[in-house]
Amino acid sequence: MDSRRAFFKKGVAGAIAGSLLGLSENELHAKPMAKKEDPFHLGIAGFSFVNFKLDESLAMMKKVNVHYLCIKDFHLPFNSTAEEIAAFHAKLKESDITGYAVGPIYTKNPKEIDAAFEYAKRVGVKLIVGIPNYDDLKYVDQKVKEYDIRYAIHNHGPEDKLYPNAASIYDRVKELDARVGICFDIGHNRRDNQDSVADLGKYAKRIFDLHLKNVTAASKDGKACELGRGVIDIPAFVKMLRKIKYPGVCSLEYEKDMKDPLAGIAESVGYFNGVCDAV
Amino acid sequence: MDSRRAFFKKGVAGAIAGSLLGLSENELHAKPMAKKEDPFHLGIAGFSFVNFKLDESLAMMKKVNVHYLCIKDFHLPFNSTAEEIAAFHAKLKESDITGYAVGPIYTKNPKEIDAAFEYAKRVGVKLIVGIPNYDDLKYVDQKVKEYDIRYAIHNHGPEDKLYPNAASIYDRVKELDARVGICFDIGHNRRDNQDSVADLGKYAKRIFDLHLKNVTAASKDGKACELGRGVIDIPAFVKMLRKIKYPGVCSLEYEKDMKDPLAGIAESVGYFNGVCDAV
Repeated sequence: MDSRRAFFKKGVAGAIAGSLLGLSENELHAKPMAKKEDPFHLGIAGFSFVNFKLDESLAMMKKVNVHYLCIKDFHLPFNSTAEEIAAFHAKLKESDITGYAVGPIYTKNPKEIDAAFEYAKRVGVKLIVGIPNYDDLKYVDQKVKEYDIRYAIHNHGPEDKLYPNAASIYDRVKELDARVGICFDIGHNRRDNQDSVADLGKYAKRIFDLHLKNVTAASKDGKACELGRGVIDIPAFVKMLRKIKYPGVCSLEYEKDMKDPLAGIAESVGYFNGVCDAV
Repeated sequence: MDSRRAFFKKGVAGAIAGSLLGLSENELHAKPMAKKEDPFHLGIAGFSFVNFKLDESLAMMKKVNVHYLCIKDFHLPFNSTAEEIAAFHAKLKESDITGYAVGPIYTKNPKEIDAAFEYAKRVGVKLIVGIPNYDDLKYVDQKVKEYDIRYAIHNHGPEDKLYPNAASIYDRVKELDARVGICFDIGHNRRDNQDSVADLGKYAKRIFDLHLKNVTAASKDGKACELGRGVIDIPAFVKMLRKIKYPGVCSLEYEKDMKDPLAGIAESVGYFNGVCDAV
């Protein structure tokens, strides 16, 4: 239909209303879906790109339209100079990507924790994802006060002797400074046969970062899979994210097909966005 | 937690209930999301793979876990022999994929329509997606009776002089045999500034096939894009699919990055599944 015919079909009143509002034909009629404004953002955990250089990783993120990256040291080594760090951030900015945190960083003693906080400070982020020994938790407690950088401990499932699930972290940080908390890996938590939806609600105040993923079974045999193909109910999870008004990043950590992850990452990103738009 | 500890934690009653039901530890505790049973299926329109051989196309479909393909002639030529058709179906079966229809097939005269119906019959499908001239519609009407094969006319947006939108098809088929209907391209319909959600409801009885896609604008300038990134409200669309109990295939026709479409296809498949799981 040409615009003249459309004009008459729509009627003079509609056309006048449109022109009074300064709206074109299409703006009047196109009704793009109102996207929900969430306090949380989708991101990608750097480990997803363990087999890829930074440029390749950023290209994949651009392709799937994700703008937050948790920085792993294989992309930005701990001993990076100020110039290297600046160049790193400039490169991310070119792709409209923000490096919002560093880690996971495994540490064995206070000296390595010192290094992690110094690294985070030099990188300019306010969040570290880490795995400290129990003995070093008091030290971490001092460091978050000293640096005003939050520290989120990562849970790694039934094989993890220190932090198998969110509860095991919460029990050890609940009396510490409010800046010590959890990087909640919802897949490993489920592999430890915990309810990741309920736990998100339960430990909300201490959850600073999230590893978003799904797994094929609620046991140690559970394997990483595309976000929509596992046993965790992602629509229920997103409802809980909204209920607690989670203000952080949901960082997709995709650990299947790690040598060729783009399709699985894209499917997972699409799934998460679809759920967010529909819930 | 080892299974012995889990046993005691869960309590004897639960364990007994589980063993009576023949359920393992994990089956008892894993609560996979109840997937909604929809009468419709996700598929892929063959044209999405215009730059790819059949094997490559099937590999992509397998990767994204989609099991229905609308067959294009570049994958199965019109002059294929019975042996070639059998080999084609066998190859699809290896990937757990069903070729559920053929087309779109453009025809200029009754002779070409004859050929299309003969082709569909030899391929063994009960649905043709086609683009006939107005003058041939009566002939199509005879052919669907003769072959008992349904014929779905495809709309192609504002540039299409014959069938820009679903309404233009409906008006011409509504008095014909009930087996003449629409392959509803929701993207081109929206590019023609029509409401694809409302139209799905309006023309439901005559919609036999769907080209699922999204577009960047409700005008002829609208470009194909990933399913979650356009102006069509896909959650509303899925609600309408459920409302009308659409019993056919929603065939993703992905026309962006056609030389490297896998990531966009995967994102779109993920998005559709996420919406279906969440709505």
